[in-house]
Order: sequence, then C-alpha cells, then structure tokens
Amino acid sequence: MYRSNTCGALRSSDIDNEVILSGWVHKVRDKGFVAWIDLRDRYGITQLLFDEERTSAELLEKARSLGRETVIQIKGRVLERASKNKNIPTGDIEVLVNELNILNKSLLPPFTIENETDGGEDIRMKYRYLDIRRNPVKENLIFRHKVSMEVRKYLSNQGFIDIETPYLIKSTPEGARDFVVPSRMNEGQFYALPQSPQTFKQLLMVGGMDKYFQIVKCFRDEDLRADRQPEFTQIDCEMAFVEQEDILNTFEGLTKHLLKSIKGVEVDNFPRMTYDEAMQRYGNDKPDIRFGMEFGELNAVAQHKDFKVFNSAELVVGIAVPGAAAYTRKEIDALVDWVKRPQVGALGMVYVKYNEDGSLKSSVDKFYDQADLARWAHATQAKKGDLICVLSGDKNKVRAQLSALRMELAQRLGLRNPKEFAPLWVIDFPLLELDEETGTYHAMHHPFTSPKPGQLQLLDKNPGAVKANAYDLVLNGNEIGGGSIRIHDKETQAIMFRHLGFSPEEAKAQFGFLMDAFQYGAPPHGGIAFGLDRLVAILGGQETIRDFIAFPKNNSGRDIMIDAPASIDEDQLKELNLKLDL
Amino acid sequence: MYRSNTCGALRSSDIDNEVILSGWVHKVRDKGFVAWIDLRDRYGITQLLFDEERTSAELLEKARSLGRETVIQIKGRVLERASKNKNIPTGDIEVLVNELNILNKSLLPPFTIENETDGGEDIRMKYRYLDIRRNPVKENLIFRHKVSMEVRKYLSNQGFIDIETPYLIKSTPEGARDFVVPSRMNEGQFYALPQSPQTFKQLLMVGGMDKYFQIVKCFRDEDLRADRQPEFTQIDCEMAFVEQEDILNTFEGLTKHLLKSIKGVEVDNFPRMTYDEAMQRYGNDKPDIRFGMEFGELNAVAQHKDFKVFNSAELVVGIAVPGAAAYTRKEIDALVDWVKRPQVGALGMVYVKYNEDGSLKSSVDKFYDQADLARWAHATQAKKGDLICVLSGDKNKVRAQLSALRMELAQRLGLRNPKEFAPLWVIDFPLLELDEETGTYHAMHHPFTSPKPGQLQLLDKNPGAVKANAYDLVLNGNEIGGGSIRIHDKETQAIMFRHLGFSPEEAKAQFGFLMDAFQYGAPPHGGIAFGLDRLVAILGGQETIRDFIAFPKNNSGRDIMIDAPASIDEDQLKELNLKLDL
Repeated sequence: MYRSNTCGALRSSDIDNEVILSGWVHKVRDKGFVAWIDLRDRYGITQLLFDEERTSAELLEKARSLGRETVIQIKGRVLERASKNKNIPTGDIEVLVNELNILNKSLLPPFTIENETDGGEDIRMKYRYLDIRRNPVKENLIFRHKVSMEVRKYLSNQGFIDIETPYLIKSTPEGARDFVVPSRMNEGQFYALPQSPQTFKQLLMVGGMDKYFQIVKCFRDEDLRADRQPEFTQIDCEMAFVEQEDILNTFEGLTKHLLKSIKGVEVDNFPRMTYDEAMQRYGNDKPDIRFGMEFGELNAVAQHKDFKVFNSAELVVGIAVPGAAAYTRKEIDALVDWVKRPQVGALGMVYVKYNEDGSLKSSVDKFYDQADLARWAHATQAKKGDLICVLSGDKNKVRAQLSALRMELAQRLGLRNPKEFAPLWVIDFPLLELDEETGTYHAMHHPFTSPKPGQLQLLDKNPGAVKANAYDLVLNGNEIGGGSIRIHDKETQAIMFRHLGFSPEEAKAQFGFLMDAFQYGAPPHGGIAFGLDRLVAILGGQETIRDFIAFPKNNSGRDIMIDAPASIDEDQLKELNLKLDL
Repeated sequence: MYRSNTCGALRSSDIDNEVILSGWVHKVRDKGFVAWIDLRDRYGITQLLFDEERTSAELLEKARSLGRETVIQIKGRVLERASKNKNIPTGDIEVLVNELNILNKSLLPPFTIENETDGGEDIRMKYRYLDIRRNPVKENLIFRHKVSMEVRKYLSNQGFIDIETPYLIKSTPEGARDFVVPSRMNEGQFYALPQSPQTFKQLLMVGGMDKYFQIVKCFRDEDLRADRQPEFTQIDCEMAFVEQEDILNTFEGLTKHLLKSIKGVEVDNFPRMTYDEAMQRYGNDKPDIRFGMEFGELNAVAQHKDFKVFNSAELVVGIAVPGAAAYTRKEIDALVDWVKRPQVGALGMVYVKYNEDGSLKSSVDKFYDQADLARWAHATQAKKGDLICVLSGDKNKVRAQLSALRMELAQRLGLRNPKEFAPLWVIDFPLLELDEETGTYHAMHHPFTSPKPGQLQLLDKNPGAVKANAYDLVLNGNEIGGGSIRIHDKETQAIMFRHLGFSPEEAKAQFGFLMDAFQYGAPPHGGIAFGLDRLVAILGGQETIRDFIAFPKNNSGRDIMIDAPASIDEDQLKELNLKLDL
C-alpha cells in the first residue's frame, strides 16, 4: 500500500494517527536541526517534519538532501502544528516522519511547479506533464471533467441517449477542411475524420432515436487562427418531433443547469435577439451584453451637412464610451490608431466629447453644431462624461470595426466581468452567406439547415434575404453553441444543394445516403452543438481554450511534447499505396 | 408542438384527455367501417382508432390509405379500449383521432420494421437508420448508453477524472497497425490515430492526475477477423501510487457495480487464477468458468502402453463431457470431424464412454484396459454417463484445440447461460511472447508493462519465463479488460525496449518523450482498459459487438451505408503532397 491518506486529507481529528503518504517533494526547508518538507499530490500539500530530537540523524540527513519533485513515500505520526497555517486545509497538522522511501528521483524541472511559474508557453507545452502538476492547469482539467459530467447527467435525465457515431467517415465536398485517412484494405481510398457528426445524428433521428447527445471529438484541417485546435470537442445534440422553441427551451435548461451546478449562478430566462437586431445594435452576431455601449446609427443626423466622409458612407454609427470624455488628446489619438490597425481596418474615427458641463466638443466641429452633436448623443444614449466614437463606411465593415472597438474598450474599462454570465439567444440567422471573393453563396450554418417556412421561393429571387431556423447561444460575447431546424424532405434538400452549387450527381455521390434516408419517413428534427472547449473556458472565467485541454497542439497543429506529426516509414507508405509528392 | 405525449406514455388515468401524438405508422388494420393504426415511436406503440360513427368519412379514408412508416401527427381523445392488450403498457387505451397530419411519407422499407425482420445483414447495414427503428437494435443502443453512464458515474464517484487525450498523435513502431493522417500544414508528415491512449495516460500519472478515466475511441488497421472493428471503444483507466492489488479491487468494484445496477446481479468476490493455471485447467487464458469440463492431464496415466500417438505427444489431455456417453457412433464421428477441421486442427480424437453401468468403453481399447481408463476418468473428473474426449500433441496446440472443443460442447449442451455472469481475474501473465515465425519476443501486453519484482535479470537468460504484473478481467469466456503495472523508471524502460529489438535511437525517436518524463519524478502507476463494445454485448447477453454499435463497419472496414472509404479529389491529394501509387 503506497498511502493511507492523500496529501489533502489530514485534519486535527487525525492527530496521533499513524499514516502513510506518497507524493512529490514540493519544497524543503532546512534549519539544520530541523527540516520540513511540503509533500504534494493532486489533493493538496501536507507538511512533513524531521527533527534532531525525534528523527534519526540518518533520516534527517536524507530528508535534507531531497531534490524538488522527488517522489517519496513516508510513514509517520500526525502531530498538531505549533504554528498553524490557515491558508491550507491541512494547515493544522504536520506529520513526524519515521520512515522515508524514495520512489523515484527527479531531474531539476525546467520551470517551477508553482501557481505562478517562470516557464514560457513553449517550454511548458514541451513538458506538459510537468505543467499539469501546477494547480491552475490541474484545476482546469478537473473543472472540465465536472462540466462534462453535469452535461451528461442533465441530458441523460432529460431522456437523451449518448450514442457514439463513427470517426472514420467519408470526405465531404467542403473537403479541403477534412483530415483524411488512407485505407490500406481499400486501395486508393480514404476515410475522413468528421468535422461534426452532423449527418449521423440526422440519421439517428430518421432511426427514431428522438433525443441524441454525444460529447465527441471533431476535426478541422484549417490554418489555425489563435486559439483554434485541429481537434476540438463538441457537445453534439439532436431531437426529433421538435420546433425551434422546443430546442431553445431544452438547451436553455442545460445551460442554466451548468451555471447553477458548476458556478452557483442563477440566471433569468435568456433574452432572444434576431441576427439582424444583433448586427444593428452590436455590429456582431455574438454580442457581449454584460455591458451597454450599444450602437447608435447616425445616418439621419449626420448626413445633412457638408462632411463628405459621412455623406458618402453607407453607414455612420457610434458608441458612447462611459466616462471617456476625460481622455486626453494623446489617449484619443491612440484609440484612432487602434481602429486604423490592419486587424481592425477603419480609415479614421470621429469623436465627440460629451463634457460634464453639457457642452459637446467634436473632431468635426467644422461641420456640425451643438444641436447636431446633441442628436448624436441622443442616438448613442451618451451621458455627460462619455466619449462618442463614430465610424463610417460600408455597413458590414464598419459594424465589424465598431464592434471590435466596443469590445476593446469594454476590456480596458473592466466591463467584461468574468464572474458575470450573460447568455443570449441569437435567432433568425440568414440561410446563406455571400462569398465576396467568388460571388457565390455558402450555407451560413450548414447545408442541412431549413429555411423559414414559406421562404423557399425567395431562394431564387433574393437568396441573401432568406432567413433560416438557425440559432446561436452566446455567452459573454462568445458563441458557445449553434444549431438549426433541419431539412427533412428530399425535395427541399435537393433545392438547397442546387443553390449551393452542387450538381445532382455531386449531391447524390456525397449525400445520397441522407437523401435516401429522407424518403423512408424522416421526422421533423433539429439540434445544436456546443463547443465544449470554449464553454468550459468561459465558465472557468478564462478566454484561452488551450488552458482547458490536457494535451493541446500549437498554432502549427503540432504536439511539441510528442513531436507529432512526424514522417513515417517508406514501407508504411507503400502499404497504403501512397507516395510523397513534395 | 408536435406532441403532448409519447407513444409509450398513455394509461387508463389519461382517459378522456385530449392528446397530440407523433410517430410512425407501424400497422394499419382496416375493417371497412373502422380502422386502427398502431402508431410507433422510440417509447412504444399507441393504438389509434378511426370509425364511421365518430370519425369523418374523409379522415377514415385518409387513415386507411396510410402506408407503413409514414410519419404522422394526430390529435384525439383517449378512450378505454373494449378489448385490452395486456402485452403492451398502453394496452388499456386507444386514441379516437379527430385530426391527422402527414409529416412525411415513406417508400416501402426494404425490410420489415419488426423485432424479427426479413432483412439480411447487408441490407440492414445499408439502411442502418431503418434497422435502428427495430426494437432489438434500439434497445441495444439504449443499453449501451446506460452502461456508459454507470461507468462514468461510478468512476467519477471514486475520484477518477475524465480527461480527453488527443486523437492526432504519432505513429509508433508497431506502425503497421496505425491509421495515419497526412498533415497539410507539416509537409510530408503524418499524424497517427491512437491504438490506445496508453502513453498519454501514463504522462497524466507523471503529471499527478492520479486517477484518470476516459471512454474513448481507438483505432487499429488490421485485417479484420470476425466481429472486430477498425474503430472500437475503450474504457481507459490509470492510477498512480497503486499496486496490482489496488487496481484489481477498484475495477472489481466497477464490474460489480455494473452487474448490480444494469443487470440486478450480485456476484461474490471474483476468483483469481494465474495465467499458467488457466492454461493448464482450461487451455485458455480467458476461460469460461460458468461450467466445468476442466482439463485432466493424462500423460502419467496414458504414456505407459504401446500407443505411439500418445507416447510421442508432449501433452495428453482430456475433458469429461457431461451426459455424452449416450452419443451415437455417428455423433461421435461428427465430433472427431469437428476437431479435425482446419480452424481447430487436431489430427484425431480418442474418446472413452463412461457408461451408466460403470464400464468404460474407448476407441483405444486395444491399448488400454479398464484400470487405465478408470484413471483417465479420475483425472478428468468424469462421472457415469460422461464422454471423455482426449487430444494429444504439442502442448500449446493441443490446449487450444481442446479448449475450442470444450467451448463448442458447452454451447451445444446449453451450459453457456447468457443470464449467468462468471467473472475471473487471470493474473501473472508472461511479460513476453515468442513469435514462432520470427523467433523474436514481443511484449505480451505492451512494452510499458513491468516485469514482476526481481525478474528483470531473467530477461537475458530465459525471456519466456519472465512474468509480468499484468492481468485480464475475464467474463463468461471473454476478455473484457486487461492491464498492468507499468514501468516508471527510464532504466527499466530502456532495458525493455532493448529486449523488444529497439535500438537506443529508435527508442528515443519513438518514446523519448515518455523516457524523458520518467526522469522528472514519475510515480509508480498502473491501469486497465476495458473493451466497451464487448463488455456491453456480454452484459446484454449477446456475443456480437456489431449489434451494439450504431453505425458499424463490415469485415472489409467499409461503412456500406455512407459508402466509405471513398476516393478523394486530385486537388486534395496535391494539398497533402501525396500521390496515389497503385
């Protein structure tokens, strides 16, 4: 037996007990005649005591010589501490050691195993197994476990069935984003790893399994933006015989349960906002509504004067930044520079200081008088002391720019409180999205999303105007889930494929099995998928998903700990009937 | 709202309620003036009533014309049935329909959606979504869900943390069995899909997460034997600061919990048997101990006469088949033919009838007298009325042959009761296994398994004799789990790799990260992995894992429903820097 207790377990009530502990040497404090060791395991730290009076000289010497992270087992007796440590649960006791076994030695770790470490990102990733010993990383992984368990418990109690769908599937036409797997047994053919179990969960609905869920890995081979992973985890769900309302209510229930059980936070019924409204009020389809700074559209009150920049713009829009009228010229110039960075891309920024004395002072006083500016203040809901920031230009672009500015200012002003949770349903997404480069339409959600009832005919005349039964769940400015009511009849699905540029042959080759399935009594159905990595990070009050993944990959898709991907043997390639073509 | 109730919900207490139901038309019975429809969903069947008196003529006509598997929604009133059906939970009521909406039509299904279907394996796989509508398949998937949930609940309550390990990892030297995934971002390099998360779970132990579990997909690209899948699911577990005894107790606890919570079966503490003993008593390292027919070794009592076949054999061994002394000559000849089939490979079989009158009659009476045969009966624990079957030859081969015969006869005699559960720990497995073809040794479990204490030196002298801290959990003649105490120091791991034929460079290239990790304070650790597919099948009293997988692949590794694997675009290959080499 390696241990009778963990290093987080012993209390005053254990005093005088003989115990066995195992763990890592976290710290040695050596006073010569007495030495203390902080012994650490997953559960906590227990102080070990060695002293000249009660410990053999040999044992004391052995204890003093132990290096950090050595793995030891000790036997000893629990004593009451002379000076208690109120900061740790075991702080009332210490263990007087009478036997010490070294279970394994340790080289000096390349960074300190402390809450705040001196190791940089790269070195911590290479030695991830040491990073995991650190409390913040360990706690994140345990937190993720709790969230997963609560998700499963809740959905199972609601009658959902956890069904595993296959990982070795077929490459789809948006194939460039599939990881593929050459088949040895089927020469020249490839499996693909799923970007999501979408078609399989729809087939389960056709199969009558009317409530399905799965926590499942998905794969996407795309150039990694910051904080994306080539493999990521979804809470994937689907229901049959449901309307959008049923799905929103069910998963609002799940989200409330998580907030309550994991964070102890009770939230009211989630507000709902259409996509169009979200774009208009926040310039963003995943607005953070923990704070205001809503968009005020200014076309009506800013295009009547001689200011060409505004007059030629599709949209003039501003936000009122609370308390920022006091910004110095330098601070405002920095803001202007910030919006002009290529990542944001604005050409400039107009501002209005709404002074405490009620006067308004703008960077365009040449063109606008106090009455004009007062109307701007009204439209942006500015109060005395606020700074109104105004951008103009192409509607879509300027909304994205102002949204970026809004989020940045909220961050700077401390308005994004990680302990506050503000969920929001964004509904009525457009069915299609125009690809500006190619001039063709893509499915905004995916090709299986159903248009709103009665809008199918619009597809020919005005495809961009068609709305879908599609919805996102937004939490604190992040999309944590998204889904839709699906198409469940072959004819509508065929029309959708045609509008997405599939020939009938291509549609049949790629999705024939699904269209076939729709002919054998497919029920109305819909679903949602949550990004678990992101959900856990946000619930944990953090923004970086990597901190909640045990073994994440870097921005080049590499696991630098195991050094993967790597080259493989010529023999192995030959068996797969492949040649490198570099 | 598509439904107020499911098709399995309504009871007498609902009589007179107005309800809305949705589901599939399971059966239409048309008597002209009255028609009944069995409406089916995941939860059951509810009888719908249409009659001339209370239903409009139009509605009655519409109901009569519905084809099987049409998806409908109805509104109506719950009535007490005149003639109740005690076979189904909703048998006391029926619903008088006043509104019927067709939600989707159905072509005639290619096989009947009944418990006993007329569809063959292939057609059911192609239309798996229809097969899933059948009760037996549906129930199997729900059963699997229950098992998974109980596993997670139990382990989580025991302090285990569910941690997701990566799917895109590195190919290992036994690489021929890896599926590989070409990396687009890392030219000419490949990920591999995990055969198991073995190294990652060991790294989690080094990282201090001392109780880990995960229900996880694993992948093996091997020629598929019957009832193997290229992707399969493991319950993967690892613990630190444990000895073998701790692991056996923990997972005996899990297995007992599953038997109790899922099957309502309580079992005593699991018996334990060494590998050597299992081979001697059952000729098999995963013996089915629900029945006897233990091996009786006969060398001492069968090699003293002039029967050359036995005298030249390494092992003469028999089993007593209960009640089979009454077999006719023809039946016994059929048994002899059975053992001579190439799949079994015996050269012949000697038999002894232990007649009810106490006399013994054998096929080798020329060589052996009654006293000899009585000793055989004693050695095989034969009783009057039994048939003793004796095989001889090379020890390993003959054990395998007699074990096959034992299992076949138990099956025929109905001794393999699927409602009885007989778990067994098989322990002390050999560390290495001789590959007869190449004359080299392989790791029997895997290269990370530790030899028994003090046996490391034996590796040079007599590698085949070294025993490991390795164990299997056997249930009803199937290995449902296997594991070991791992090596946790770099030196021992290096010795193991050397004995397995790795050069130090190869070991470093493949497993350098693990050997590095062992240098930074790796704790003693060990674990186990259960095959979930098999476990679920056995708990479900069945033998075929495919019946418990939603979308299984066939013996060529193909998904015939979606038609995968398939060829991919030339462009996609080019992006991956690959060429086909057929």
